[in-house]
Amino acid sequence: MPTVTAAILVIGNEILSGRTQDANLAFLARRLTGIGVRLREARVVPDDADEIVAALDALRSRYDHVFTTGGIGPTHDDITSACVARAFGVPLERNPEAVRRLEAHYGDPAMLNAARLRMAEIPAGATLIDNPVSAAPGFTIGNVHVLAGVPTIMQAMFDGIAAGLKGGDPVHARTVTCSLAEGTLAEGLGALQDRYPGLEIGSYPWFRNRQFGVSLVLRGTDVAELDRATEELCGLVRSLGGEPEVGGGDA
Amino acid sequence: MPTVTAAILVIGNEILSGRTQDANLAFLARRLTGIGVRLREARVVPDDADEIVAALDALRSRYDHVFTTGGIGPTHDDITSACVARAFGVPLERNPEAVRRLEAHYGDPAMLNAARLRMAEIPAGATLIDNPVSAAPGFTIGNVHVLAGVPTIMQAMFDGIAAGLKGGDPVHARTVTCSLAEGTLAEGLGALQDRYPGLEIGSYPWFRNRQFGVSLVLRGTDVAELDRATEELCGLVRSLGGEPEVGGGDA
Repeated sequence: MPTVTAAILVIGNEILSGRTQDANLAFLARRLTGIGVRLREARVVPDDADEIVAALDALRSRYDHVFTTGGIGPTHDDITSACVARAFGVPLERNPEAVRRLEAHYGDPAMLNAARLRMAEIPAGATLIDNPVSAAPGFTIGNVHVLAGVPTIMQAMFDGIAAGLKGGDPVHARTVTCSLAEGTLAEGLGALQDRYPGLEIGSYPWFRNRQFGVSLVLRGTDVAELDRATEELCGLVRSLGGEPEVGGGDA
Repeated sequence: MPTVTAAILVIGNEILSGRTQDANLAFLARRLTGIGVRLREARVVPDDADEIVAALDALRSRYDHVFTTGGIGPTHDDITSACVARAFGVPLERNPEAVRRLEAHYGDPAMLNAARLRMAEIPAGATLIDNPVSAAPGFTIGNVHVLAGVPTIMQAMFDGIAAGLKGGDPVHARTVTCSLAEGTLAEGLGALQDRYPGLEIGSYPWFRNRQFGVSLVLRGTDVAELDRATEELCGLVRSLGGEPEVGGGDA
């Protein structure tokens, strides 16, 4: 299977001002990795149309999928849909199905005011993404998937489209943790990476309770190769006086 | 005072695989906002030299400051310093002061092996940034500040250089929270933004305990203008049947 790549575009002044800690990047990174899609880049841009369009164009031309979060609500600072339409050179249109969903959600027609109807303005040719939480849909156009910024809603939207995303070979991972210092392991670790060019070997030091240690993560699509390299790495750790602990699971 | 801008470049496969949740962006965003530096963009790129150099060049040419996190340790995947040298077109040199700090930190000369000495390879012409936690320094070259990826170390490094960063006018903020829906407020909020073009007014919906509400954030450098707009916004919330709660503080 070929490699399938993705980028994330987080849209919102609140992330850049530090008011809000983004949680969507970590969620999407884990979920995409889990379905065999390689997240290659993420960007955070402000609520500025030129910045959003430039980032959309840079990312959608380079990666198989682009996921945006934020900026699809009813207020003046919600400009993502208009920016996506501009990037694709299509009009923003009132989408009848989106209107129907909002009508069903709000019940009382008086509640569906002009501001809320903005959430039914969708780029022409886009496919709606279900929003089981608050009705106002996301959408997919070309290789761009437009999701909400509120994490609970974004996650529900992603769950709805995940099954339809074509992943590549799933990436497996092994983690070897020990309390040796990175600098002690570095030479042997570099040699191991040289012997296994098909694997991606990362070294992530930690510092807690006034103690240093390191988590060594091996990633790859070939499980047998991964297990051989993990075995060799455990041997390296032991030869340097450490006690390796092996974990698996998340890539 | 002029506006002073910044970007953050987070370097590391572990963020893009979802293995590690980045905490450095939120920390730097808050701290930069606090000293009057406007964070305009953030990017996350993998441990890939071409990607890192391209992002460095894109960001350092557009913003007053660029802060990088990650990739300055002793292992094969730590390539940030070499990439910064390449971006600036200067050699990577063994820095005598950095060697001295590592020698003092490790004590035993045998501990300071070839891998650890890599952490003393610094682009020519750079100024070292203190690392009070584990000695291996960061550095500043031109408008690029290279910091560690481990949050405790990154924060200590930033604290060391924060006083020397020239900020612009400090940005003040007021937050008005209420349990009205965004769509109810949107029209009046848009009109308020139109009346106060010098302020940045953001609307951040939340959804918890099966209830929707919204935090409305006003930001600006003119406190009197900010207070007038906040007063008007509270009036708007009350006129729509809501009860505004006003907070200040973090921009």
